Amino acid sequence: MSDIKHRFAPVPTLRTGQAHPHPEPIGGDTYSAVELMPGFRVVVLDQRKLPTIERYEFLTRVDEVADAIRNMLVRGAPAIGVCAAYGMVVAAVAEKGDGPAFLEAMSAADATLRAARPTAVNLAWALDRMKRITEEARSLEYAVRTERIASEARALHKAEIAACKAIGALGAPFVPENATILTHCNAGALATGGYGTALGIVRAAHEAGKKVRVLACETRPYLQGARLTAWELAKDQIPVEVITDSMAAHFMAKKAVDLVVAGADRIARNGDSANKIGTYGLACIAAAHEVPFYIAAPWSTVDLGCPNGDAIPIEERSERELSHFALPDGNSIQIVPDGVRVRNPSFDVTPHALITAIVTERGVVQPVSEGELAKLATQ
Amino acid sequence: MSDIKHRFAPVPTLRTGQAHPHPEPIGGDTYSAVELMPGFRVVVLDQRKLPTIERYEFLTRVDEVADAIRNMLVRGAPAIGVCAAYGMVVAAVAEKGDGPAFLEAMSAADATLRAARPTAVNLAWALDRMKRITEEARSLEYAVRTERIASEARALHKAEIAACKAIGALGAPFVPENATILTHCNAGALATGGYGTALGIVRAAHEAGKKVRVLACETRPYLQGARLTAWELAKDQIPVEVITDSMAAHFMAKKAVDLVVAGADRIARNGDSANKIGTYGLACIAAAHEVPFYIAAPWSTVDLGCPNGDAIPIEERSERELSHFALPDGNSIQIVPDGVRVRNPSFDVTPHALITAIVTERGVVQPVSEGELAKLATQ
Repeated sequence: MSDIKHRFAPVPTLRTGQAHPHPEPIGGDTYSAVELMPGFRVVVLDQRKLPTIERYEFLTRVDEVADAIRNMLVRGAPAIGVCAAYGMVVAAVAEKGDGPAFLEAMSAADATLRAARPTAVNLAWALDRMKRITEEARSLEYAVRTERIASEARALHKAEIAACKAIGALGAPFVPENATILTHCNAGALATGGYGTALGIVRAAHEAGKKVRVLACETRPYLQGARLTAWELAKDQIPVEVITDSMAAHFMAKKAVDLVVAGADRIARNGDSANKIGTYGLACIAAAHEVPFYIAAPWSTVDLGCPNGDAIPIEERSERELSHFALPDGNSIQIVPDGVRVRNPSFDVTPHALITAIVTERGVVQPVSEGELAKLATQ
Repeated sequence: MSDIKHRFAPVPTLRTGQAHPHPEPIGGDTYSAVELMPGFRVVVLDQRKLPTIERYEFLTRVDEVADAIRNMLVRGAPAIGVCAAYGMVVAAVAEKGDGPAFLEAMSAADATLRAARPTAVNLAWALDRMKRITEEARSLEYAVRTERIASEARALHKAEIAACKAIGALGAPFVPENATILTHCNAGALATGGYGTALGIVRAAHEAGKKVRVLACETRPYLQGARLTAWELAKDQIPVEVITDSMAAHFMAKKAVDLVVAGADRIARNGDSANKIGTYGLACIAAAHEVPFYIAAPWSTVDLGCPNGDAIPIEERSERELSHFALPDGNSIQIVPDGVRVRNPSFDVTPHALITAIVTERGVVQPVSEGELAKLATQ
C-alpha cells in the first residue's frame, strides 16, 4: 500500500480569517462579496477559498477586476454586476485626461469587463447602466466625474440589496414558525450585492423572529451549498446543516422539510424556471411529498422574450469540473476513470406547474402562470 | 492570492495498473474484488485507490484480511462475505496443531473477522457457513482439512457469482434494445464475488447482444458510482457516462433514461427496500417520469423478519465523510465550514409501491408486495 506516486503534505486546518476591510460596507456588516473601498479600490472576498479561508483581495486595475470575475473570486449574477460597476470606477480613477480620453478609457474598460463572463446577464445590464452615467459625466472635471461614477456604482449596489430585501419581506410570510427550509446552491449574500434572494427570504423570516433552520444541499459539482450557503448562514448565526443533494427525498419522507426555496438564473414568460442543476429534481421530490416549492429571484431574471423552459438554453460545462475534485491550490484529484465520459449540464428547468410561487421584488407570482407573471410585467 | 498555507505537490496522472494476479480467477478474468491465490494467499483489489490506481494487495494473515475489510479495501456486502471466507482459509493454513488447537485457532479467526464490520449481514452469514465446515473438518489431517476449508470458501464464492448470473438472466428481459440504464452506487462485480447484481442485469443484457449504455450517478459522499461503477463497466467495455446524483431528473425529463436499476442492502417482507442514500429520490423521480425502477439483490438480502421499511434501521455515518473530501493518501480537504453540522444517513428506504420489480436469483417479484415476495420465500 506504499506505492502511491503522489504524496501531499499534511493538510493543516486553516483559519486564516480576515476582518471585513471596509469601514462602512454596503453589502453586509461582517462580510461582503464585493465593496468599493474609500480611495476607490475594489475589494472582493475570494469565494474559491471558502469555507476554510476568508480572504479579501484588493483590486486597483480594471484587468484585475475582470480577472476576479473570470476566475470566479466573485460569482453569482447580481454580485458580478456590482463588481463590474465598481470596475468602471477603477477605470475612471485611472484616466485623468480630457472628455474624449475619458470616454475612450471607459469604453475599453467596458469591453474588458463585459468579456470577463459573457453569459452572466447582470454583467451586461450593470455595464449598460454605468455607460449611461459615463456619457453624462464626460464633460465634468476629473474629481467630480470620478465621484459621479462611484456614486452611481454604489447606487446600483444599494438597489440590488433593496431588491433582495423586498424579496425577503414578500417571501417571509411563506415561512412557518419553526420551519426547516431546504435550499440548493447559493442564492445568498455571496451571490448578490448582499442579503440574497432565496437566503433573503430565510434572513427576513429569521429577522422577524421566526425560528428557522436551513438544510443546505451541498450542490455538486461546485459545492456552492456546502462551501458558501453554509458559510454565510453560519456567519449570520442562522442554524444550517449540510446534506448531499441525494438526501433531500429521505428528509422529506421523514417530514423534516417544511418548504424548499431556490434562486433562478432565468425565468420564462410562462414561469418555467432555470436554476442550478438539481433544482428540478428537488421540485419533483417536493411535489411527491406535498412540500411547497418557491423560487426567489429579482425581476431582472424574468425573460419575457422566452416563451417557456424549452426555449432556455442549458449550458453544458467542462467535464473536468465533475471528473476531478478541485483542490484549493488549483491542483485536482481524479474521481472518474480515464476514458469515461462525464455529462455536466450546469442548469435544469423546473416547469411552472411544480412551483408554488415565484417571489420577486415587484410582487409574488401565485399561482405561477403566464397571466400572473404578465400582471407584474406592466408595473 | 499567495497566502494559501498548504501547498500540495502537483498531482501526476496515475496509471499504476497491475495485471490480475490470479492464474485462474473465480471473480472475473480481468479483475476481481477478492480471490484465493494458489498457496492460499488472499488477494484483494484495493478499491480505495480506484479509479486511478489498480492495485492488488496480498494478505497472508487473518488480521490482515480483517484490516482489509475494516479499512474498506474490499466493500460491498457479498464481497465482504467472500473475503471473510478466504480469511478462514488463511487461518486454517496457519494452524498446524491437532483438532482442538485447530478449532481454537479457527474460533479466534472467526471472532476477528466477524468484528471487522459488524453491520454487514453477509459477513456473519459467510462465517456461519465456514464454521460448519470447520467443525466437520476438525479431525482430518492438516493438509486435507486445509484443502477442505479452501474448497468450501471457493464454493461459497462460486455460489455468490451464480446468484448474480441468475439475477442477470432474470433481469435482462426488462432491458429494451438501445437502453440507457441509470444506476446508483456500485452493485457490481466489485461489490460481490463477481458479475454484480444491478450491474449483473446490465452485463447480461450486454452479453445477450443488446446495445446498452449506463448513466452512473456519482453517489456522494463516497463516489462509488464515479470511482467503481464507471471503472468496472469501462474495464468490460460497456458504455458508461457519469453524472452527479442531482442530474438524474434532468436526463429523465429529456427522455434520456429508459430504466433505473439499483441494488439493495435490506428488503423488508412487504418489499420496501433500503439501499444507498439517494436511491429513494431516484425512485420518486423515476415515478414522476414513468421510468421503470428495478431493485436487483440476492435472496439473502430479504429480511422476512422485518415487516416494512419503517423497521429498517438507517445507519447515520460520520459527519467527516461528507464534510471533508478524502484524498488518496488519507489526508482530506474540508468543504463544509467549521461549526456547521452535517447529516449523513448512509441509506434510505424506497417504498415497495415505487418499485416496478425486485429481481432475485430465486425469481422476479412483480408486482412488489408481501404476497408476491412470500411465494419465493417458500421455494
